[in-house]
Amino acid sequence: MKSFVEVPPESHFPLQNLPYGVFEPVDGDGGPRIGVAIGEHVLDLSAIAVAGLFDGPILTGSDCFFQPSMNVFLGMGRPAWKEARATIQKLLSVDEPTLRDNASLREKSLWPMSKVRMLLPIVIGDYTDFFSSMHHAKNCGTIFRGPENPIPQNWFHLPIAYHGRASSIVISGTDVVRPRGQGHPSGNSPPSFGPSQKLDFELEMAAVVGPGNKLGESIDVDKAADHIFGLVLMNDWSARDIQAWEYVPLGPFLGKSFGTTISPWIVTLEALEPFSCDAPKQEPHPLPYLEEKISRNYDIPLEVWIKPAKHQHPSIVTKSNFKNLYWTLTQQVAHHTINGCNLRPGDLLGTGTISGSEDESLGCLLELSWNGKKPLFLNGTERRFLEDGDEVTFTACCKGNGYSVGFGTCSGRVLPAVP
Amino acid sequence: MKSFVEVPPESHFPLQNLPYGVFEPVDGDGGPRIGVAIGEHVLDLSAIAVAGLFDGPILTGSDCFFQPSMNVFLGMGRPAWKEARATIQKLLSVDEPTLRDNASLREKSLWPMSKVRMLLPIVIGDYTDFFSSMHHAKNCGTIFRGPENPIPQNWFHLPIAYHGRASSIVISGTDVVRPRGQGHPSGNSPPSFGPSQKLDFELEMAAVVGPGNKLGESIDVDKAADHIFGLVLMNDWSARDIQAWEYVPLGPFLGKSFGTTISPWIVTLEALEPFSCDAPKQEPHPLPYLEEKISRNYDIPLEVWIKPAKHQHPSIVTKSNFKNLYWTLTQQVAHHTINGCNLRPGDLLGTGTISGSEDESLGCLLELSWNGKKPLFLNGTERRFLEDGDEVTFTACCKGNGYSVGFGTCSGRVLPAVP
Ligand SMILES: [Ca+2]
Ligand SMILES: [Ca+2]
Ligand SMILES: [Mg+2]
Ligand SMILES: [Mg+2]
Ligand code: NI
Repeated sequence: MKSFVEVPPESHFPLQNLPYGVFEPVDGDGGPRIGVAIGEHVLDLSAIAVAGLFDGPILTGSDCFFQPSMNVFLGMGRPAWKEARATIQKLLSVDEPTLRDNASLREKSLWPMSKVRMLLPIVIGDYTDFFSSMHHAKNCGTIFRGPENPIPQNWFHLPIAYHGRASSIVISGTDVVRPRGQGHPSGNSPPSFGPSQKLDFELEMAAVVGPGNKLGESIDVDKAADHIFGLVLMNDWSARDIQAWEYVPLGPFLGKSFGTTISPWIVTLEALEPFSCDAPKQEPHPLPYLEEKISRNYDIPLEVWIKPAKHQHPSIVTKSNFKNLYWTLTQQVAHHTINGCNLRPGDLLGTGTISGSEDESLGCLLELSWNGKKPLFLNGTERRFLEDGDEVTFTACCKGNGYSVGFGTCSGRVLPAVP
Repeated sequence: MKSFVEVPPESHFPLQNLPYGVFEPVDGDGGPRIGVAIGEHVLDLSAIAVAGLFDGPILTGSDCFFQPSMNVFLGMGRPAWKEARATIQKLLSVDEPTLRDNASLREKSLWPMSKVRMLLPIVIGDYTDFFSSMHHAKNCGTIFRGPENPIPQNWFHLPIAYHGRASSIVISGTDVVRPRGQGHPSGNSPPSFGPSQKLDFELEMAAVVGPGNKLGESIDVDKAADHIFGLVLMNDWSARDIQAWEYVPLGPFLGKSFGTTISPWIVTLEALEPFSCDAPKQEPHPLPYLEEKISRNYDIPLEVWIKPAKHQHPSIVTKSNFKNLYWTLTQQVAHHTINGCNLRPGDLLGTGTISGSEDESLGCLLELSWNGKKPLFLNGTERRFLEDGDEVTFTACCKGNGYSVGFGTCSGRVLPAVP
């Protein structure tokens, strides 16, 4: 499977991937539109639609690609997604002359990535963050509540989650301002106040919801995959000092809501299918509404890099994998809706921090530095938590046979707090 | 101050109130539009705008009233709101002939309430629920965690809140399906599963956000009132058994997200101004970012009524007051944004359950029945938690000198769980 568009060997975006995003030309030539990444280019799906090349039964005449966000297309569901993928894969393939031999259409529809700016691809009605890595749950519980029973009893029975803040979700490349807030009082003094002293990243991925469900109805766990379009990388920036003081009894709030970064390209479940693998065995056995006929994870290697302000190069700080998650995406969807809560197209479901079992696979600095007790070394510089100027970059890439299906990067730089 | 439109003496909607809502004709004659309540009529602001009667410096030529939601108008801020209020108050007054003597325009712009259906007035980007009544915090803490230190230490230093679910916010009159979910295991058995056995209401009000703030910036507590358009009644339906099992450590999730009901009319801060009063003294003294020059509450009497399925009439179950809140709306806004979190027009900020100090002023059944231990009697019928068919109605009305400024009602009926 090969495209006529050049795809460098290390590219995350070969013909097997075709992730979706929303972009606009940097030169101000028109507004936001939907595209698909191929090598170092973006295929403008609005131009393909104008040319009448989406000619399948569902997409003929649809306005879904003339939108500034993916939401309409997301709501159309898997039959539309499959039809679009088949059309695009054929159009871009080396053997298909339609686009390959049409210089004028190529000119209109294939944008070099250097000439476009990526935008938030979805309007996010609600953002939910799960807590589905057992290693992360155990480490956080030990740090915040001590080594006896670090994982709450409920954790093994349900995929714990909280509602996150949708307004402060930003696209990769957006700077993040260090938040100010309250920290624990020491002794009888009032709580501390000022810029967070424990700014952290959280290595996560997030599912983008396709068709939703009606309020009052639930999604069956065995049909839940049809409600998931694909995945992005997500950095759930966290201020551990603010979080530790505020989170009892209603959960994290200002320790999280100052910013969440996602990667621009949504990699579809279709593209990830070759990398699916068995989910971990769950003991105790889940309740029937969480029990699935096929319980699958994806083998997606993940990396976190930090580049301090004055360094030339980033240093790797962790290597983890999506398959470290205990609860599956489909169980998350079934649980989220078991009470009748309605999901909508474009909702974002974060996995929670993806930590593995090894010291080198922990998904946040809270765990990596054990709450600041043992520093990391980045090419000679010490880190307990993030410092101003640090640029944090996540990346993920599945290695296939002679090709990769990757997510590009999810990055953000820390700016100093407001004085 | 009197209108040419008839306003019955007990009406919540005299010329002094003028709350905003979004409605559509029940006869399918055109789509959603913005209106203002006057007596038993709704003034259609789109018709007034078409007639060119919004002729002040800000609103002339604006499309803000040709929208299916209030969001554009909300984002325009207090100067626009004041101009609109002055125009509408003048147009409806008994001495002003423009509308009074124009039969054709009256026909087009004044709808009897019986001919319209009220819709959700805002597109809610994010919904936050605070926890600002000390009595409620104390009672819940005692019930869930015991009588020693029922109120967590942080409660007196910051207005605690959590992110709520925006998708399941519905307009008054919408039925609410009893949620299913997990409850605490007893002994070594697995968790229980089924329809919630502890379905509850929570008596709340909610602020509707006007202009927002940029991500990374904060709103000064002394300027926060300019970011609040007005208030609605809110029922934060809660499933106490689901909540009690799931909420450690990340807070309430499915115990809340199955539904939240708001009243259709947004009563503006201008209309509530005559009912403002001093906020309670705060000890310990709040940190500087929460300290305000003028700290005000509003004297808004609140009532909750329940009508069981087979009863002819509802029974009153509680009488509370908005002034029971410890943290003010402006402190909530300042706290919410101190970390740089961005608010957007139309965001909804729930106050938390508004309980008073008396047994008769508790804002939810969890408190009223002390977690089911002492039943209430509704005209001979016993209630510990809500039963299928129960209709719960909130109402609020401020009594002025010869007039009332009221909120109408916020109601919903409990439907049986999905089998
Ligand atoms: Ca997280
Ligand atoms: Ca509440
Ligand atoms: Mg975050
Ligand atoms: Mg609720
Ligand atoms: Ni090119």
